Order: sequence, then structure tokens, then C-alpha cells
Amino acid sequence: MTEHPAENQYPTGIGTSDLHTIQVLGHDLAGELMGRVGFAELAYWLATKRRPTPGQLRVFEAVLVSLADHGFTPTAIAARLTLYSAPDSLQGAIAAGLLGGGSRFLGVTEDTGKYLHDVLGGLGDTDAYTDVDWDAAARDALTAARAARRIVPGLGHPNHKEGDPRTPVIFAIAAEEGMLGPHLKLFAALGRVAPEMLGRALPLNGAGVAGAALADAGLPLPMLRGFALLARTAGLIGQLAEELESPIAPAVYDEVDRHVLYTPPVNPEN
Amino acid sequence: MTEHPAENQYPTGIGTSDLHTIQVLGHDLAGELMGRVGFAELAYWLATKRRPTPGQLRVFEAVLVSLADHGFTPTAIAARLTLYSAPDSLQGAIAAGLLGGGSRFLGVTEDTGKYLHDVLGGLGDTDAYTDVDWDAAARDALTAARAARRIVPGLGHPNHKEGDPRTPVIFAIAAEEGMLGPHLKLFAALGRVAPEMLGRALPLNGAGVAGAALADAGLPLPMLRGFALLARTAGLIGQLAEELESPIAPAVYDEVDRHVLYTPPVNPEN
Amino acid sequence: MTEHPAENQYPTGIGTSDLHTIQVLGHDLAGELMGRVGFAELAYWLATKRRPTPGQLRVFEAVLVSLADHGFTPTAIAARLTLYSAPDSLQGAIAAGLLGGGSRFLGVTEDTGKYLHDVLGGLGDTDAYTDVDWDAAARDALTAARAARRIVPGLGHPNHKEGDPRTPVIFAIAAEEGMLGPHLKLFAALGRVAPEMLGRALPLNGAGVAGAALADAGLPLPMLRGFALLARTAGLIGQLAEELESPIAPAVYDEVDRHVLYTPPVNPEN
Amino acid sequence: MTEHPAENQYPTGIGTSDLHTIQVLGHDLAGELMGRVGFAELAYWLATKRRPTPGQLRVFEAVLVSLADHGFTPTAIAARLTLYSAPDSLQGAIAAGLLGGGSRFLGVTEDTGKYLHDVLGGLGDTDAYTDVDWDAAARDALTAARAARRIVPGLGHPNHKEGDPRTPVIFAIAAEEGMLGPHLKLFAALGRVAPEMLGRALPLNGAGVAGAALADAGLPLPMLRGFALLARTAGLIGQLAEELESPIAPAVYDEVDRHVLYTPPVNPEN
Repeated sequence: MTEHPAENQYPTGIGTSDLHTIQVLGHDLAGELMGRVGFAELAYWLATKRRPTPGQLRVFEAVLVSLADHGFTPTAIAARLTLYSAPDSLQGAIAAGLLGGGSRFLGVTEDTGKYLHDVLGGLGDTDAYTDVDWDAAARDALTAARAARRIVPGLGHPNHKEGDPRTPVIFAIAAEEGMLGPHLKLFAALGRVAPEMLGRALPLNGAGVAGAALADAGLPLPMLRGFALLARTAGLIGQLAEELESPIAPAVYDEVDRHVLYTPPVNPEN
Repeated sequence: MTEHPAENQYPTGIGTSDLHTIQVLGHDLAGELMGRVGFAELAYWLATKRRPTPGQLRVFEAVLVSLADHGFTPTAIAARLTLYSAPDSLQGAIAAGLLGGGSRFLGVTEDTGKYLHDVLGGLGDTDAYTDVDWDAAARDALTAARAARRIVPGLGHPNHKEGDPRTPVIFAIAAEEGMLGPHLKLFAALGRVAPEMLGRALPLNGAGVAGAALADAGLPLPMLRGFALLARTAGLIGQLAEELESPIAPAVYDEVDRHVLYTPPVNPEN
Repeated sequence: MTEHPAENQYPTGIGTSDLHTIQVLGHDLAGELMGRVGFAELAYWLATKRRPTPGQLRVFEAVLVSLADHGFTPTAIAARLTLYSAPDSLQGAIAAGLLGGGSRFLGVTEDTGKYLHDVLGGLGDTDAYTDVDWDAAARDALTAARAARRIVPGLGHPNHKEGDPRTPVIFAIAAEEGMLGPHLKLFAALGRVAPEMLGRALPLNGAGVAGAALADAGLPLPMLRGFALLARTAGLIGQLAEELESPIAPAVYDEVDRHVLYTPPVNPEN
Repeated sequence: MTEHPAENQYPTGIGTSDLHTIQVLGHDLAGELMGRVGFAELAYWLATKRRPTPGQLRVFEAVLVSLADHGFTPTAIAARLTLYSAPDSLQGAIAAGLLGGGSRFLGVTEDTGKYLHDVLGGLGDTDAYTDVDWDAAARDALTAARAARRIVPGLGHPNHKEGDPRTPVIFAIAAEEGMLGPHLKLFAALGRVAPEMLGRALPLNGAGVAGAALADAGLPLPMLRGFALLARTAGLIGQLAEELESPIAPAVYDEVDRHVLYTPPVNPEN
């Protein structure tokens, strides 16, 4: 408790404010950003400290739209049940919904981006790669994954077994915008070679292609899950607004409560 | 446990999916929404089940931008400390940051919207109101609040004591877009009459005007806090991305740890 | 940014540590507390900075046991769904379960304690009160609540319509331990006079009597919800341990997913 | 959406209720558990579906006491900041505090238990092991960890560099209660051989020995982090009760706010 420095400092490049102005990212929030910069644009900028190009922004928005809502997912149901139990705390219901954003559902976006990044890290310069090169790289990657008994993220979907409808649209938008980078190209190659390598078609799922597209659009890998969570926040607000109007949580609770199969532990000493 | 209906049903108008398509709000997500609808536009639509007009959308985006980040707020610090403690769970750090979105900070947006709505509910038809009428209504409202010893939300700001720079910009954007509705007009009147009624200028703060603008833009009152939380999610992602690059949480922890003043309870029987 | 004091200080009476010792509540954690103080005893002590008497402790433990688990509540289901979605983050699943600890379910404990405290505040000295006096006070309180159209917390239970089995046990334990204080006495009187005042029996529910008992046992009113949450944390750990062995979350998700009734908004312009 | 089974069932062995009774773990909550079973005892029982022996319970309570509070940890500060921001939602502040219960701080308990379990799985029958055998096993484990560049959890402590005061107490209590099982014995051996193997003393930390003791006391490995979270819930309630009386969150916020070093991104095009 002795070595107190002359003065602590807490550095940030995001924002600060004084009596008359609010600075965000080096700009005057009121005079330069509000009404001139879109919300998704600002979200990109905050995460990267770079303003997106129009192409990056269009891909980013398309990905956010693709991830915003998937109907009655476990996380949407959890958020609705939480609002039912604690209607006074909307932030708690949203937080509960986001807390399900882990490895099984929302994690695919991040896992895919990181996986592709790792594979790319072993490839050297891919600027001149043709599809044939990408396919060779994808075969090597699948061989390595099989040897390591590692699952390749982003392949296959529990419902969209014949192809996730979001996948070709993200590829098309990225192509239109000149945003088909190495992550998307490698991911496409994985989809092409998967049938021959794995003995069955495993379509590229939309959460995985989202991760590849975000990486190519310049978003930071450690935050990819965060963008899935941002998108999902919009979806959860929709779910919770609907829950207030037309609740399902009481019916879910009732369904479970009516069909409890109670099988207590049978150790007579307990 | 007897009256099981023939079949449960869980109604929703938000989304569903089958083998080949994902429906969101009655539209094909891949074919009709991705790349064509912006993220903020979809967020509005999910919350209201109405697609925003261009004017509603511009106000909505401006408000989200205004609320996204306020620097090192207590919630931003809490999120950073949580990431420091649990770096493996980005969703937990975001959730921790959102959980501070309660009455003291983010609640102002919702509280102001609801307060204005309540006052408007007692006014009858205000379509032909002039500024003089609005000022009279505002005086009545402040008189009633004083009698009830109730604080009027949205007035005053701890830092921007001479005026919140966001306030005039939101009014200006709403005016440009034809979105100056009764909530904003009443709120403006409250600002005009506050000095004479309260004996001091209490500038309209940006969180309060955000609530008024969202209400006039057609967003549902019970969800106003939700939009502040959506905006803040983008800000928290920025804060957490920066924390990964340039952490402050260890310094905050160290600062507190070095300056603990330990004063244990002195009851000798304990 | 000018007036930096010579040194910040962060006072606490809970704990601190240095190279060789950890202090908790003025005691050496390792030498004086571990193995000598029970966990519930420490929880009481931390919350109040007073070590509980044996009677206070027995009531406290009985209340925690009474609140620990209520089967498949909405919060338990939400926690299980969250673990299913994010199996890597046990803390997230527990947090999601606790976030439902709001007004509708767990809030009753706190609401009842506070309500009784408020009524007692208007009664003056009740040391010499007989049951007749308490009944009179209870009648006045119910009359006042009716006039204010205010619901009295802790009365009635959705399932235990003929009496909550926990209620008489808590009263009996409190009586055995000399812990029948004014909160429990007033609550008992409310139960006695409710039939004549309200025209029907409204049994005192277990969550409400828990609040009264905690207040009489010396726990702070603003934290009563916290003890319900502490108890529930133990229940949630049980629910989640069982979920790992014998999951129900996939079946809940499947139930809802199979019975979606999709009714998208029908506005043709959208 | 076709194959609806005749009836869903949701199995549980924890609890259920009907009009007159509440069952927990096969016992009548009101008649058999309340007032007769302690809170920590019930917590153990819920997690394992086995009632603890007196020795298991004493170790369990000692471990919970050891983990309940560590002063102004980052999680305690985060919880206090959250309560400051959202004073209306105690459950949110507790949840925010628990969300920091991840790998860096609370994770050690679980990581150590699992690590020891993994090593033990490779040893075969250790019933007749002497200290010499355990030391040999520990040397092999440290060699393997070094080869795999894997950190051994539970060794070393940032503050208690000369020994964590909790460690010998947990070993002593376990020995008194006949609860020195293979996890604790292996962990002790790791502490003995660490200096010769690693070239420096790395004391066994209290969070690690907690994990070993919980495993020997029969608690399930996947839930070890959960018990650290249960203990911490009691600590957080203490922290938050104190925050209500004697807040530090405003000072933490003020400290950071006064010492912001704003360094916005300098790209002129942005």
C-alpha cells in the first residue's frame, strides 16, 4: 500500500465529455455523428476504431440482419421466462437471453471465424490463390481436423440439412461489394470439398458464413461473438415486446409443470 | 395434471423456419431482408411489427447513435471488470454491462417517455396546440409534479449543466423529418417553462429527449429502455474490444485494492 | 480534472488481506472462521455485520431451506435453457436463473417484509400487544390497503390454495427460538382477519412468511430479496447438476418449436 | 411438426408440489427438512442427491466459508457499480458479480479439481499409495505439464506468495474428518515436489485446495465452479448490503472519470 503513483490514468480512444461537448471516436457526437452516421456504422466504428467502407458496412448490416432472430430459440424462451418472472427488469430479461450466447448456438460465428483464421495463418500468401488452390487448402484442413478429431465449425445445420438459405446471400452480397476475402473463399472451399472428404454434404451454415464474412469485413476476431450478441439484442427486444402483448411464458411453464415426472432419489438412508 | 389440451400452441409473429426458408416478420429473411434492410430498420420492425418510415428510421438511428456510448460510465467499468475476471465469456461481460441499465442511468429514456405519455393522456386532443398551449400544459404538469413531490424525469444533467449538446440535434432531426410529435413538443415546453417554475434552468437532457423522440417515432413505451440497451450493447462491444487491446480493469482493481480503508465491526462479542 | 484529493480511500468492514492473513469481519479467516463457523452463519454475518444468535441462525437456515427450490419454476427452466445454449458458462446459467428473481416470484419475500415494516412504523410501541391488538392493527391495514387499491403481499398462493405447508413450520420454529417478533405477529394477524375482511381465506404464503421471519431475525429489509436469491442459488445448482445428467432443456425447446403458431403481421405495405 | 408424442414428460428428482405438500429430494419439505437440515447441507444434497455425511458437510462448509469473500475483488466492484447504476434490481447486481466467476478468479477451484481428477485417472488404484508414491506421481504430472507447456492450476497466488493461509486449514479439517482423499493427497504432493521441479516454491492456493477438497468430499466435478459461485453469492450480498450503507461505487466512477486519458484514433479520414 505504499507505491501510489503520482496520478492514475485510464486511457481510452472511445469517448469522453466535458461541459459542452461529447466526443466519440474523435468526433463531436452531436455535431458530426448524430443524424449523419447510421447505428450499425457506429457499432462497426466503435469496435474497430475505423469507419467502415460502404462495402464493409453493407456486409456488416447484412450479417447482423441474418443473425437477429431465429424464432423460439432456447435463448428467446429463456428471456421470455425471465421477463415473466421479473417484469420490472427488462435489462435482466435481455441479459438472460444474451447469456445463452455461448458455444452451442451463437458461438458458431466466432468459432468459424477463428478456425478459418488459424488455417489461413498456415497458408502463407494467398493473394493469387485460385479455386483449385483453395480446394487443396480445404482438403488439407479437413484432413488435419480429422486427424485431430476436431470438429470443423460452421459445417452442417440441424434444420437446414439441404442448405442454409442465408449462406448464398451473404456470399453474393460480399461478392457485389468486393468483400470476398480469404475467410469466405476458404469457407466456400470447405463446403465444396466436404462431400468428397466426409462422405456426405454438410452445408455451410449461416452462423458460420457470418463469422467468415465479418472477418473479411475487417471486424476483430475476438469480438465476433459480440456482433452475434448485438444482432440478437435486437431480436430479443422483438421477442420481449411480443411477450408483453402475447405471452407464451405462462404456457411454457404450465406445459412443464403439468408433465413433471417426479422420480426422487431412492436411497433409503437419505 | 388432468386438463391437457389437445395441443399446445405458441403464437408468434416474429419468425419461424423450415427446411428451406427462414421467415422473419412475414418476409423471407434471405431473399427479401438481408442486404436490403438495414440493421436498425430491422430492430425497429421487430419491436413494432411495422416497418419504419424513412423519417421514423432516421430519428431512431440518431437516437441510438446518441445513446451508444458515454465513455467510462459505471456500466462500462463493470463490463470491463467482468471481462477481466472471466475473459472466456464475452456474453457475460456484455450482460453485466447491460444489468446496470436501470433506473439511475439508462432508465431516464424510458421514464421520460412514460412521464410525457401520462401527461399527454390528461390533455385530450392536442393536434391544434400552439406553443402557448404547450407551455400552459407544461406549467400544469410541473405544478402537479411539485404538489406530488415527484421528480420530472429528463430535466437536468450532472455534467452538461448549461445544456446537453444532443438535445437540440435530436429536435432538429425530428423537425427535418416531420417527426416533432406531442412528446417532443411537450418536452420542449417543459424546458421552456422550467426556469420560471423551478427558479433555475434545468436543461433537457439527451437521454430524456431520446425517450420523447422514440415515443414520437412510434416505438412502444414499455420497450423504451430496451432501445437504450440496444444502443449500449454497441457501446459495450467497443469498450470490451478496447479492453482487450488496452485494459483499464487491472488498474481500477489495483486502485481500489491499494486504498482499502479496512474498518471491521468493533463489537467485541462478534 | 483538477481537484484530485491527496488520496482516495475505499472503506469496508467486510474483509481485506495481506501477505500472510485474510481478514473477514475483523476475524482471521483461516484461524478463526473456517471449520468453526457454518456457511449460513457467515452469510448472515456478512449481511448484517453481526454474528447471529443461535435462534436467529436457526430461523435463517430454515427460511433458506424453505426457499431453495420450488421445482420447475420459470427461473429454473430459464437457467436450464441457458446451460443448454452455453454449456461452457455455468456462471451465466446461474445468473440467468437469478435474473428471474424479480417481483412476480422471488419478490414476495422482500415485498412482504417491507409492507409489514411500513405498517409497523405507524403503530408505535407494540411490545405489549395482545392478539386482539394485532388483529385490530391488521384490520386497519387491510382497510387502508383496500382504500388504496393496494395488494397486500404474501397473501394467497396459486397452488397451495388451502394453506402453504411451510407457513406453520416457520411460525413454529420462530416460536421455539423466541423469534416471534412484530413482523411475524402482524403477519399472523393478517392471516386471521383476512377471511372476514376479504370474504375469503387467503392463506399466508411461504415466501411472505419468509420475509416476515427474516425481518424478525434481524436481517436488513433492503436485502431480503438477496436471501431469497442466495437460497435459490443452491436450488439452481441442483437444477443445473441434474440438467447435466438428465436434461429437459432440449425437450422444452422441441415442444415450443414443434407447436409454433406463426401469424406474421399482415400489413401488405410491410 | 408431425410426430407429437402422446405426452411429453420432464423428469426430475429434485422437487415437486401439489395442493398440500412440497416434496424436495423425496422428503416433505415442511415436515422433514425445514428446521432439521442446514442450508449448506441442503445445498450439498441438491447438487449430489446424496445427503452428506457429517465429515463431508464439515469440509463443504469450511470450503464455502473460505471462498465467500475476498474483499474488493473485480467482481465485488462490478456488483457494486451495477447496484449504483440500477438500484432497483438487486438480482441484477448479484448476477453481474457472479458473471465474473470465470476462468481468471473463481475458475481455479474447478480447474484444479478437474486437473487432479485427470491425473488420478491415469494412476490406477491409489488406495495403498504412500507419500513417496504420491510424490512420484506428482513429479510425473509436473513433467508432463511442462512438456505440454500446460499450467498446473492451483499453484501460486498473486498476494500470498509465502503460502495461502487457507490451505493448511482445509487440509487439517479434511484430516480431522477422515476426508483426505486422493485429490487432496495428490495436490499436497504437487506442493511438496514443486520447488525441486520448478526451481521455486509455488504455494498451493486456497481456491485450488478448495477444488481438491470438494472433489474428495464427493461433489461433482462439473459443478465445482458452482460451489464457488454459491459461496460468492453470500459474499456479494455482504458487499451490496455494505454498498447501500457506505457506498464506494461513486468514488470508483469518479476516480476513473477524473483521470481519463482520451486518445482518439488519429486517422484523418475517419
